[in-house]
Amino acid sequence: MKSYQEMTREELLQEKAQLEAEYRKYQMRELQLDMSRGKPSTEQLDISMGMMDVLSSAADLTCEDGTDCRNYGVLDGIAEAKVLIGDMIECPPENIIIYGNSSLNIMYDTISRSMTHGVMGSTPWCKLDKVKFLCPVPGYDRHFAITEHFGIEMINIPMLPTGPDMDMVEELVAKDDAIKGIWCVPKYSNPQGITYSDETVRRFARLKPAAKDFRIYWDNAYGVHHLYDDAQDQLIEILAECKAAGNPDMVYKFSSTSKISFPGSGVAAIATSANNLEDIKKQLSVQTIGYDKVNQLRHVRYFKDINGMVEHMRKHADSLRPKFEMLLDLFEKEFTGLGVGEWFKPKGGYFICFEAMENCAKKIVSKAKKAGLVMTPAGAPFPYGKDPKDSVIRIAPSYPTLEDLTLAAKIFVVCVKLVSVEKLLEE
Amino acid sequence: MKSYQEMTREELLQEKAQLEAEYRKYQMRELQLDMSRGKPSTEQLDISMGMMDVLSSAADLTCEDGTDCRNYGVLDGIAEAKVLIGDMIECPPENIIIYGNSSLNIMYDTISRSMTHGVMGSTPWCKLDKVKFLCPVPGYDRHFAITEHFGIEMINIPMLPTGPDMDMVEELVAKDDAIKGIWCVPKYSNPQGITYSDETVRRFARLKPAAKDFRIYWDNAYGVHHLYDDAQDQLIEILAECKAAGNPDMVYKFSSTSKISFPGSGVAAIATSANNLEDIKKQLSVQTIGYDKVNQLRHVRYFKDINGMVEHMRKHADSLRPKFEMLLDLFEKEFTGLGVGEWFKPKGGYFICFEAMENCAKKIVSKAKKAGLVMTPAGAPFPYGKDPKDSVIRIAPSYPTLEDLTLAAKIFVVCVKLVSVEKLLEE
Repeated sequence: MKSYQEMTREELLQEKAQLEAEYRKYQMRELQLDMSRGKPSTEQLDISMGMMDVLSSAADLTCEDGTDCRNYGVLDGIAEAKVLIGDMIECPPENIIIYGNSSLNIMYDTISRSMTHGVMGSTPWCKLDKVKFLCPVPGYDRHFAITEHFGIEMINIPMLPTGPDMDMVEELVAKDDAIKGIWCVPKYSNPQGITYSDETVRRFARLKPAAKDFRIYWDNAYGVHHLYDDAQDQLIEILAECKAAGNPDMVYKFSSTSKISFPGSGVAAIATSANNLEDIKKQLSVQTIGYDKVNQLRHVRYFKDINGMVEHMRKHADSLRPKFEMLLDLFEKEFTGLGVGEWFKPKGGYFICFEAMENCAKKIVSKAKKAGLVMTPAGAPFPYGKDPKDSVIRIAPSYPTLEDLTLAAKIFVVCVKLVSVEKLLEE
Repeated sequence: MKSYQEMTREELLQEKAQLEAEYRKYQMRELQLDMSRGKPSTEQLDISMGMMDVLSSAADLTCEDGTDCRNYGVLDGIAEAKVLIGDMIECPPENIIIYGNSSLNIMYDTISRSMTHGVMGSTPWCKLDKVKFLCPVPGYDRHFAITEHFGIEMINIPMLPTGPDMDMVEELVAKDDAIKGIWCVPKYSNPQGITYSDETVRRFARLKPAAKDFRIYWDNAYGVHHLYDDAQDQLIEILAECKAAGNPDMVYKFSSTSKISFPGSGVAAIATSANNLEDIKKQLSVQTIGYDKVNQLRHVRYFKDINGMVEHMRKHADSLRPKFEMLLDLFEKEFTGLGVGEWFKPKGGYFICFEAMENCAKKIVSKAKKAGLVMTPAGAPFPYGKDPKDSVIRIAPSYPTLEDLTLAAKIFVVCVKLVSVEKLLEE
């Protein structure tokens, strides 16, 4: 196949005419398609309906230790939920606090607490002239929204196939004590689906930050969200690795069951060192009497243990896999050798990331919209919504039906090609 | 009856000997009783067990507007939950945000947001030299814990039978722009069970605070928590009153179903003006994708409407009323005319407040403890845990069985009398 770059102006014009005709056909259908949101599909939600039937008597609502989950009490989560989530994220139960329904909320609260009260006795960040965060890009827009909300300066760190550029991370944290954290989605990253290599995790654990209150914000959002049984990415457990490296307090690990049970009605957790837990609980005991234990117990009763959860995640994989494969097959077929962009092939998570030619992402997203296909806004995976190259597009295959997604994918392909041809013709 | 103050030294010594004998009898029984916590009893929890059975199909989990409560979305609460809670707190649904399980958490987050981001554009409180709050006393310890946690200076305001001393409130807020708020439990107050008079509420609505970012923190925790059908306190609705008085933005009203459905697994809400809501949502959209809609819908499906909730609250009243009446009857019988203290007779809420002779509260609580009865620590209902007169004791009748409570009450009576006699003998 000839790449667009190799084509003559004539050939490009011919291709353009053909693509435009195809594009117009889609436009005339007045479609309403959406590949913008990392939401589970209705089919996936149905997988968890058994959650609704596991609690009916007062006995069902009583913990092993006798705690009546219907009443006040238990600040940091019921014991059996800590075991379940601990197994899910490969951490000892004693390092865990179970919160409410949202790990994002935990991250927000963690930053907010650091602003007003510092970290383990450090100066509250709101009293400092400057606070900075490292942001591997592309990344999760809601992470960046939190740091932006608190006026924290964000520094882009390029993502490599092995994770963030660790040379840059090591150098920056060592020399600048205003750098207080780094956002990480270490497994099946949002949006690229990259899992940090062993070497990357080990280098994280061995960081020598100038700031004592520097923390790694390890958002393990997709820890058990594999697409395949036999081809799964492995991630080194960061808490143990930090401890071994003499940096036990350097990491906060976040997780939730949002994309396991019900988004918005799951349970979320933090895992961290005893010192950090003490620091957090001092504040948490002022903030609340406790989170929803009934829902914590609902999860335990339904999944029973980690085996139950792994089995459950196979059903999610069965629903998601055909969507990812359809998209990746189509990209392979339509884009290979064409020079219009690159993409990763994730083995889990919720996204595919397409990297178009420079200055094309916004145009592609806009063109898709005019054909009835909503994509994540270009720029969203970057701090301040600014993609320096305007090339990254996040694709979320989960929510539409396979039929709708197939149509959406075809429209996307046409938009990518058309914008690429237009760009080359302009040059 | 002769009061202790009228007794001769001889008579007091005789009374003391008798009380000590009685006290020792209780001590020898090695009891384990608890009147310290405002927790519903197991009997009360059982009232809400129907909550567990109202959601089982995907249709059950779908809102009237088609929202699938099992998925992400809806930042400020589902429409039908806003209607239910709106009726409960007498506010229009459009003035409400439904949160997670804890109104305390909303209050904490409200203060925390004001610290880091100010209120509707005001200077963030963390940038100010001094921030102060007015604290009607006795009050709710967890309110005071929040303001203390953020380093906010607390100023005691005496509670009168009509509510806080409004002369003092008006004067202080008018002259000091460092005063940014006041904590209120306006109905069946914690711990006295006082409901603010119409005049008090109207004076609140007409406050002329020096600080533009002054807000009334109106914790309507016991709005529908009556003990009687035919003798209920009435409270003027503060949002409407503030609006009418030209102070629409001056109040945040908090509420929850913690003591209606299940404590820790209820839903909590804020009601406030459109301007305040806009300010809050700007931040909330960064903090979370949304709260537990399944649980919101569970409440709607179970209570159906405000009538269902009122009916439900009658069952709570039936469980609580005998406990309150037993205590109040006993106090009447044992304390009237004795000069050992005073108490209010609440028509709702969760507490009875006993005001002992000065410098007696700590001793009474300590003596009770040594007889196996745990009371709320003396001083707890005051900022910094300091009761200037050391006289206030909060009594929480809800959690123990009536049998245990009766025994606890008798021990309490003996402890009050004994400490009072000892005090008089020392003088």
